[in-house]
Amino acid sequence: MATWAKTLTIATQGRETIDITSRVQRVVDESGIRVGLCNVFIHHTSASLLVSENADPQVHADLERFMSRLVVDGDPLFRHIEEGDDDMSAHVRSVLTATTLCFPVSQARIPLGTWQGIYLWEHRTSPHGRKITVTVQGETRMEGER
Amino acid sequence: MATWAKTLTIATQGRETIDITSRVQRVVDESGIRVGLCNVFIHHTSASLLVSENADPQVHADLERFMSRLVVDGDPLFRHIEEGDDDMSAHVRSVLTATTLCFPVSQARIPLGTWQGIYLWEHRTSPHGRKITVTVQGETRMEGER
Amino acid sequence: MATWAKTLTIATQGRETIDITSRVQRVVDESGIRVGLCNVFIHHTSASLLVSENADPQVHADLERFMSRLVVDGDPLFRHIEEGDDDMSAHVRSVLTATTLCFPVSQARIPLGTWQGIYLWEHRTSPHGRKITVTVQGETRMEGER
Repeated sequence: MATWAKTLTIATQGRETIDITSRVQRVVDESGIRVGLCNVFIHHTSASLLVSENADPQVHADLERFMSRLVVDGDPLFRHIEEGDDDMSAHVRSVLTATTLCFPVSQARIPLGTWQGIYLWEHRTSPHGRKITVTVQGETRMEGER
Repeated sequence: MATWAKTLTIATQGRETIDITSRVQRVVDESGIRVGLCNVFIHHTSASLLVSENADPQVHADLERFMSRLVVDGDPLFRHIEEGDDDMSAHVRSVLTATTLCFPVSQARIPLGTWQGIYLWEHRTSPHGRKITVTVQGETRMEGER
Repeated sequence: MATWAKTLTIATQGRETIDITSRVQRVVDESGIRVGLCNVFIHHTSASLLVSENADPQVHADLERFMSRLVVDGDPLFRHIEEGDDDMSAHVRSVLTATTLCFPVSQARIPLGTWQGIYLWEHRTSPHGRKITVTVQGETRMEGER
């Protein structure tokens, strides 16, 4: 049983979803772990993690439109407004999605469904460097695998 | 320390919640692991995972009514509509709930609260076969347990 | 590789967020684990877990205002009303946030971002004692750490 962890920085161009599937899988590759768990953690409260459809870009455009309507930038309800209209809405959007995800590792891969991708969702409108930590814990041999 | 994983297929009859608690616990039983972690992962983006009240069926009816009103099938906002009115709404509902859950294992059981159950939430209106993977990682003896 | 788990009871004074970061970190300290995973699980369906901004108290006031408007106590949609107007809304609020969180452990700490705190969100309006279980799994030495 071994543990392997790596912290990555993802550059964002403002509000957008970024496919990080291959970057996460690469850490699993480096770990040499064949069966176990893979945790992804984002060190921020105004960007979050997402598992979603990876085929049709319209899905992410629709997700963004839905979320923008549900959590309105500059909503007069919000009093935490120091950093602008997208400040508090970014925190709410993070809370409604995920800060940590935990995947199985099987045969040295995250066994995502055909249409699943792992995404970072930048909720601020300006570019940021976002830190995520990928931690892989498990067995380097085949025992325990089904 | 050992890892045990199993992939199950859950048949759904359309939009509904299905109690998978005993099926998840059975994988923990098979693993022989007494203390550790149990990850549940669903390999889909239009069905999701849920921990919720398991006593009063009205809770799940209310959850469904709330979610249907929040994420409206056929919302004109949505452009990803190839598979019907419940296509994009299913993706949004998945994003607002969970694709992965991670539970403790203690004394060979997931120590759910009295009223907690683990559910698969089918968000499409037609029947599907949904794949989930349950991964258990931990110690087969008592060491480390509190 | 070791596993360490502890169940804590958090007293709440009614609907509020409570910073549990130091209590969770204390279990990591006790575990002696330097690199691995830390799972937090709440044994309830009307209180939940949250990672959010820890600097400006307005953020949590805004989160509460947003959530109260999105999930209205006593919404006529709800039929599970035995325990009062905040009963079903508490379940919905739990479903929209998190029942389980899983963090990395690195250099014997949960490497939270500068502005991140771990919170328990009590969704009922009356005081409760809430049980959470913190499970730490990993290596007590430095191997595998990056």
